This record gives sequence, C-alpha cells and structure tokens, in this order.
Amino acid sequence: MSCIEVGCRLNYSVRSPAIFLLNVSVARNIHQTVSSEALEVHPFQQVEECEVGSLGNRIVRINAPPGELTIHYHASVQLQAAAVDSTNVCETDYELLPPDMLSYLNPSRYCESDKLYRFAFEEFGQLIPGYSRVTAICNWTFEQLSYTPGSTGPTTTACDVLLQRTGVCRDYAHVAISLCRAMGIPARYVSGYAVNLQPPDFHGFFEAYLDGRWFLFDATRLAPVGGLVRIGTGRDAADVAFATIRGDTQCNEVDVWAHDLNPGDDLLSPDNVQTGVSSA
Amino acid sequence: MSCIEVGCRLNYSVRSPAIFLLNVSVARNIHQTVSSEALEVHPFQQVEECEVGSLGNRIVRINAPPGELTIHYHASVQLQAAAVDSTNVCETDYELLPPDMLSYLNPSRYCESDKLYRFAFEEFGQLIPGYSRVTAICNWTFEQLSYTPGSTGPTTTACDVLLQRTGVCRDYAHVAISLCRAMGIPARYVSGYAVNLQPPDFHGFFEAYLDGRWFLFDATRLAPVGGLVRIGTGRDAADVAFATIRGDTQCNEVDVWAHDLNPGDDLLSPDNVQTGVSSA
Amino acid sequence: MSCIEVGCRLNYSVRSPAIFLLNVSVARNIHQTVSSEALEVHPFQQVEECEVGSLGNRIVRINAPPGELTIHYHASVQLQAAAVDSTNVCETDYELLPPDMLSYLNPSRYCESDKLYRFAFEEFGQLIPGYSRVTAICNWTFEQLSYTPGSTGPTTTACDVLLQRTGVCRDYAHVAISLCRAMGIPARYVSGYAVNLQPPDFHGFFEAYLDGRWFLFDATRLAPVGGLVRIGTGRDAADVAFATIRGDTQCNEVDVWAHDLNPGDDLLSPDNVQTGVSSA
Amino acid sequence: MSCIEVGCRLNYSVRSPAIFLLNVSVARNIHQTVSSEALEVHPFQQVEECEVGSLGNRIVRINAPPGELTIHYHASVQLQAAAVDSTNVCETDYELLPPDMLSYLNPSRYCESDKLYRFAFEEFGQLIPGYSRVTAICNWTFEQLSYTPGSTGPTTTACDVLLQRTGVCRDYAHVAISLCRAMGIPARYVSGYAVNLQPPDFHGFFEAYLDGRWFLFDATRLAPVGGLVRIGTGRDAADVAFATIRGDTQCNEVDVWAHDLNPGDDLLSPDNVQTGVSSA
Repeated sequence: MSCIEVGCRLNYSVRSPAIFLLNVSVARNIHQTVSSEALEVHPFQQVEECEVGSLGNRIVRINAPPGELTIHYHASVQLQAAAVDSTNVCETDYELLPPDMLSYLNPSRYCESDKLYRFAFEEFGQLIPGYSRVTAICNWTFEQLSYTPGSTGPTTTACDVLLQRTGVCRDYAHVAISLCRAMGIPARYVSGYAVNLQPPDFHGFFEAYLDGRWFLFDATRLAPVGGLVRIGTGRDAADVAFATIRGDTQCNEVDVWAHDLNPGDDLLSPDNVQTGVSSA
Repeated sequence: MSCIEVGCRLNYSVRSPAIFLLNVSVARNIHQTVSSEALEVHPFQQVEECEVGSLGNRIVRINAPPGELTIHYHASVQLQAAAVDSTNVCETDYELLPPDMLSYLNPSRYCESDKLYRFAFEEFGQLIPGYSRVTAICNWTFEQLSYTPGSTGPTTTACDVLLQRTGVCRDYAHVAISLCRAMGIPARYVSGYAVNLQPPDFHGFFEAYLDGRWFLFDATRLAPVGGLVRIGTGRDAADVAFATIRGDTQCNEVDVWAHDLNPGDDLLSPDNVQTGVSSA
Repeated sequence: MSCIEVGCRLNYSVRSPAIFLLNVSVARNIHQTVSSEALEVHPFQQVEECEVGSLGNRIVRINAPPGELTIHYHASVQLQAAAVDSTNVCETDYELLPPDMLSYLNPSRYCESDKLYRFAFEEFGQLIPGYSRVTAICNWTFEQLSYTPGSTGPTTTACDVLLQRTGVCRDYAHVAISLCRAMGIPARYVSGYAVNLQPPDFHGFFEAYLDGRWFLFDATRLAPVGGLVRIGTGRDAADVAFATIRGDTQCNEVDVWAHDLNPGDDLLSPDNVQTGVSSA
Repeated sequence: MSCIEVGCRLNYSVRSPAIFLLNVSVARNIHQTVSSEALEVHPFQQVEECEVGSLGNRIVRINAPPGELTIHYHASVQLQAAAVDSTNVCETDYELLPPDMLSYLNPSRYCESDKLYRFAFEEFGQLIPGYSRVTAICNWTFEQLSYTPGSTGPTTTACDVLLQRTGVCRDYAHVAISLCRAMGIPARYVSGYAVNLQPPDFHGFFEAYLDGRWFLFDATRLAPVGGLVRIGTGRDAADVAFATIRGDTQCNEVDVWAHDLNPGDDLLSPDNVQTGVSSA
C-alpha cells in the first residue's frame, strides 16, 4: 500500500457568467481509498457535487459570475495496488465476456477500432493471447509514436495519430485502446494523477479487460503504473475531460501534482511487465 | 394505446464455428409492454439472454456450429405512446441537466458533435430553444439529405454525411444527434421496428432530452413516430447493432415486419409536429 | 492601369544547412508587367532562379549555411486590370472546354470536389450558369465561414472547412474552388500580394474559367480584386507555397507589403460584382 | 523490344445525351511506339481527339445521343523497355532536382504525402537512398496491403488505405507514391495496359524520379513491369480516369486485353528488382 497526495490548482478569468463541470476528484473504489479531500473555490461559489454514470466519475458543477475563479483540489489517497503475476493472465473468450463489457469493444469518438480490424490483426494476430499481447500493443504504440506536446488537439483521433505518428498521453491511450478493441479485448480510457510525471500534468492511460478483471496500462512509459491515481473512467477522452466550460473564460493556470509520501514504495517501473496492476 | 406485432427472420450460412450477438428483442419500459414474445433458433442452439448496460438493451448470444442457422423472433407489444403537446416543451438549462444526461452531450464514434459547434450554432443558434428547435434540426436534416440506400456504409459518420448529403436512416439519426449535442441538447440513438416502414427493415431514429424527459424523433419521415417500437438505446449505431458476429458467416435473408393490429390507431403522421412522443 | 509596389522581407535562423524554395516573385503576363524588381539575400548566397511548369511560377532556390538568413524582395508592377462587364459572361459548355482546362475540374489535395457533387448541386444547381453563379459561390463562402486566423493549418482541406466553418484566405479559396469544380467550372488557386490587405500578409484567392477566359475572385472580401498581384498559380495551395524549406530553420519575421502608388485608382471594391477581372 | 497488342471494348446504355471523355489510347514516347491503332464508335459519332497537358495524355471526347454506345479501341505497340541495372541508381539531391519535377513532390488528392512525413521517415529513413529504397517502399506496400477488389472506392485515399490495409491497384500506387514523396522522391501515377494481368483490366502503377530519369514500379506484383503499356500520366488517379462521363448512363461491359505477340520476350518478372525500367 502506498500513500499519494494529489491535487491541482486551476485559475480562470471568467468574462461572462459561466458553468464549470470539473472532473478532477479522485474516484473511490476498492483499490483506492481517499483518506482526506478538499475542494475550495475562490471566491466562494455554490458547488454541486454529483456522480455520473455507473463508473464512479465524480463531477463538480459550479456557476461562476464574471471575475477571477480559482479552484483548489487536494486529496490523500491510499493506493492498494493489486499487483498480479501477469504470466498467466489470459484474454476472456468472446462468448464468455460479461455483457456489460461488450460496450468496451465498440468504437468510440477517438478510438475508431472499426476501421482497424485488419491493421490490428496483421500486427498482433500472431501473438499469444493474454496480458502479454496488450503489453505488445503498448510497446508497439510506444515505439511507433513520438511524444510531442502540441502535435495533436482535442479532436485528434487514434487513426489520425496512427498516420502522423506523434501525440501526447491521451493519443497513446486512444491508439492502444483502439488496437485492443480491434483484437477483441475490451478497453477503456482512464484519466488521473500520476506520481513522478514530468512535466507534472493531468495524465491519460487505459485499462484492458483480461481474465475477468481490468488491468491498468500506460503506453507512454512516463510514470510508474503503480502510482497512477484514477479520476475518471470512460470510453475515451470525450467522457472524462478535466474541465468542460460553458461561457467566455480564459484559463490562466493549471498546476497539478502527485507525490508519493513514502518514496521507498515500489510503484512498479514503467517497464516492469511481469507484474500487472488489477485496477477495478 | 396501440398493439403492434413485430418480428424478424434471419438466415445465415455458418462456415466456421461462430458467435452471434443479436440485439433484436424489444425493450421493456413503461411506454412499451411486451404481451407475448418468442425467439426460435433452427437448428436448436443454446441461447443466452442478457441485458447490457443500464438502458434495457437485451442481447441474445448464440454459439453456432457450421451449417445453416435461422433465427425467428416475434413479439406483441402494447405501445403507450405518451403524446404530449409539444408547444411548451423547453430545453433543460445546462446547469440543471441531471448528471446522467451529460454523457449524451459527448461526441461519439459516428456523431462528431465536437467538430460541429459553429456549424450548428450558425444554422440553429437563432431559433427559440425547445422542442421546436429539435424539430427544426429534423426538418433541416430531411431537406438537406437524400435518402439513398447503399450510399453509406458501416463506418460512415455524421460529418461524412453532412458533406455527401446522402444516407439512410442511421445516417439521418447521426446527423440530427450530432447537431442536437452541438447545440447543448442531450441526444441518443434508438434502434427499433417501425410500423409502415417501406421497404420493411430494421429502423434507426433518435431521442432528444427536453424538459426533463426523452422525446422520440425520426428525421427520415419514413414512418409514423407513434409506431416506433424500441429495441436498443445507445450513443450511436455502434452501440446497438442488430447483429454482431464472430466467425465466417454469410447472411442470406433478413426479413423484418411491424404491423399495427388496429390500423385505426392514430400513430402520429411523420409531419405531426404539434405532438411530441415522450419515450423514456 | 495602376502601379503597385509589392515586396516582402523574410528572416530565418538556419540551424543546419538548408535549402529554400521561395515562390514570392510576381508572375509576368499580359495583365501584369514588372517594371523593376530585386531580390537580395543577406548574407550573400548563390541564388538559382527558375520557372516551374507552364503557368509562369517563378521559384528561387537558395542553399543556406547555418546562421541568419534574410531575403528581401521588392517589385514595381503595372497592373492592366482587364475589367469586363460580367453580365453576359457565361460558363463554357463541358463539350467545348479546351482540353488543357479539364485538369482544373479534377479534385486536388485541399479541394475534394469529388466528395461535393451533391452538396454543390443542392446549393447552386438552380442558379443561372455564368459569372453570377461563381459570385454566388463566393458570397455563400463568405457568409458561411468566419475568418479566424489560427483556426486551420497546413493540412486543412475544403471539406474540413465546410464542417468547422472557420478559416483563413487559403481556406476560403479552397472551398470556393471545390464548389466551382463540383459544378463543372474549372477553377484554380492563385497566391499573391493584395493592396490594402489588413493585416498585411501574403494572400490566397482563385480563378474560375468562364467564357473562354480566367477571371479573378476573392471570397474573403478582404482586398480589392483590382489590386491583386499574382505570384503563383496552381491546383491549390499545395502548388504555390511561399516558402518550402529543407533543413532545421526557424522563421523569425515575415513582413509583406503592397502599395498602390496612385491611390486614386479604382481597384474595384470587394463587393463590385458587376465588373469581372479577366486575369490570364 | 517487345510487341504488345492492347485494347478495350466498352459498352454503355446512354439514357440522356451524354459527353464521354475517354483516356484509353496509349501514349507515344521514345519507349513506346504505336505501329497501328484504331478507335471505333458504334453507332458512329463524331470523335474529338486531343492531347491534354504536357505529358502526352490523349483524350477522346464523344457527344453521345441516347441509346447504346460501344467503343472499341485497339493498338499494336512496340515497347522499348529500357532495362537498366538498378544497382547504382541514386536519388537526385533536392537542390539539384529539375524545377519541373518539384510539383511531383507536392501532395495530391489521393496521395496525402503532407500527412506522412514522419511515418515515411520512421519506416524508410534509415535505408540507403536510391532505387533500392523505392523497391523497399514497394515491398512494404505489397506486404502490408491485401489486394481486395471492392474494398475501396473512387474517393479512397492513401491514408485511408494505410489504415484499412486493403485496396486495389490504384490504392497500391497511391500509397507508394505518397511514401516516395514524403521521402523527397518525386513520384507520379501511370494508368495503362498490363500484359498477363489477371483478371484482365485497366491497370494503375507509378513512376519515381531517380538519377535524372523516371523509373516504372508496380507495388501489386500482378504483372511484369516490362509489359506495362502507358496510357496516361498524372499526379494520381484523379488525373487519368479511363472514362469521365456527364449524363445519365450505365456501363454494361468493360473488356480489356494486353497480349505479348512474342511470348518468349523477357518482360521482367514482378520480383526482378535488379533491373529497373526507365520509362520517360
């Protein structure tokens, strides 16, 4: 078990009355216990907290008048990284997939798996099914892409990235998710905080459903998998934007952090592929 | 209340062991009561029936050995078309949208609303918000597109259709859904049976969330809205394919029907826009 | 006849040996006489001047060593704006089009006219053929799009712009060219200098082939058509980039100007549609 | 020298007065001598023959009244296949490229090389420049794609094909052309007849500019390179459609043939990569 402190400070200039939907609060589940948590808004505004969908995504809704708006969130999280020997983790046969996992095989806005069946089959069809095949998809994604801030935008899709070969964390996740789905492996997007991420920022990674459980993967190799703290879960980044805003605003500051309070923890280095992290 | 008989007969040549996921059973909800129903598979196979997600989508999973496979489904459905005077049906303010409706504002695989904000605003931004604005979106879709079987395929998106200006029912629904979402109106895809549809086939239409309820719309004007029988509900057609098949098969026959047992029913003609149909 | 002074000053930091292809020299044709012209490169480099293709595009090729590189070009141009009463300018029948005009009906990289036949026909098919139909295409383009610097990039196409509804001069030209071609009117891209353009920059506009001649059009309405000075002509912006560079360089300055030496000239205001400008 | 007989028979039902542009006549150049040739139209129609552009593309324009229309073309061609030892054929340095070759580096409608710079560089950047690098691009294209009639359509681009991994001859050519251009090698599309092509049809292949000459390549490996008879040359398939038709017509028959009159000729097997064919 490791104890992580995460948080963010966001500052906006609000030019017209605006509505903020923030998805920055950490999710609560059996692998992730929140021991303390606070959200502060300056100047003070009414805050509506709600849970969206059945996956534990927590949304904060704020009506903000014109002026400056600062949001400060911080939490202490106990991570119960469920390390698992990945050697014998197999793929779940299609006829045995729980019905609620089927939708994670469907293509989504930024993960056009329906255009990539042959592509995925050619690249990964000969590999032994299981955890190691998802690892191979991550490795391929890491090797083919160049991590290039600014090279993609909010409407960039996995297919765009497969052609241009550059992207950021959300693009790496979208590519890997698309290839997993095209191979028949349910996969979904996870937003979160990441210990040791450089430069510090919100992070995007993914989960694949194997052997009856979800496992965490991060094709960017930018942070230890055991130090990933979940915020939101969705089909792709469209479902878990950190901030969705209606109104005329300007973002002045996004400051994000995630610290391991006990740096001696073994958070699993990015290239430790023997150990899977069962996540949900 | 009207009583509709719906059904389909599907025939396949199965060349290798195959898994069928069929989404042809009618949904059960307060507007739609199933009085009798049967699914027959020839030759006899084990059938697993399951519900997927929280929207009442019913999936049938069949493991089929090589050979012929015929599926015959039929049901009698009591439709409690909740006709509503649409005059005062307003849009729900963004800050008041129930959290679970927020995901129906997100772009999805075939509904790239994130690329159409300005397009939608230019075309529909000046209209009075409410039911009549969704009607205007349907009318625009109907007028701009030409219904042309074969002009689109399984990976065609709303943006593709907006440029090529031809499509079939699923494309009409995708365009209207995308424009609704871009305007801030939650919208989702519905597959179903449709009384009087010519030629008979499965049908695709959509729902928009207005004034705290979902309302049915069909931009194709091909069938009366009051005679639409819901099968599945999803973000777009990716979520509610009638048949998803793993294995080497060939489809030989798709026969679909929907009959109103009391043809005197007023099922609401396609151009009756005074009366909304509250649907879920 | 009007006398225009045009020019540009470009400054680069060259980090590795680089090759510059510049297309900034004004074209020479019967409507456009160059009375004086100079290209200076600091520090001095060998300059190869060449003409590319059969359209009079003039390319300057420079091998630049690491260091600063400044290019200074200026020219005095006599414009023989061939003003023509546009009232009776008709479209050339397809069977009478000169063979060399046929390729300007083909789709090109940024002008996917082959995807827009129906779109164009629906919007412009009922209009009287001729100069006024091209004017209608320009007006539609002007009204549908919002001129938004930074909203598009070097790989943005006409179809992208038709969906997002924002762009800059090259995008306006690409949209109008695509719609002309889809209607059977040969059209091509022109890069150039523009008197009174605000803010000053290189400009992009287009020509349509009508009644046996090419006519200039500018859907942006940003500058008088009679003050457009041609640099290059091509199928779309891919053919007439102002600068194509191999090597590691950084652009520090692009300064462009175009002055009418006799401001009393009637250069035809952007909304003068009675008078066409025959251009080549 | 080999002697090839080529030809085609095309039959249409013309429902409204129509204009046909046919590009089926073989080109004439120093490698390709036409010893006899005939074009017959039944019923008799006026035929306008013209040359388009500077590349020797020959167009036949026919005004056809309603009714049946049959076009019969045949020619005897002496092919002077200029076999060249490819071992030392290098790429031409960018600063030495003849200006008229520069446009064959530009992206075109179906060859979006501007989106593939990094992709191409990652795959082929480490290879030794020259003929063998173009051969490597052809081999990669052949290995990655599956030749699947019907899998692509008239608006399919190289980027589409790179994702879906299936296509026909024109798609193979577009992919290879795009990758060549992205690597800085001028490349263009060639339509033609191909000896021994199975099933017989018009064919599409490409040329790359190396060492001061154009060389023929065919990434499909479907026919011997020495038996390719050129019809048209262009930036991509948009420029050299076999038939472009205005009017309501239906194509009933397309019969194409290409026979080597001296089957003992060595036409260079598809996998002979030691010998290049200098083509123009």
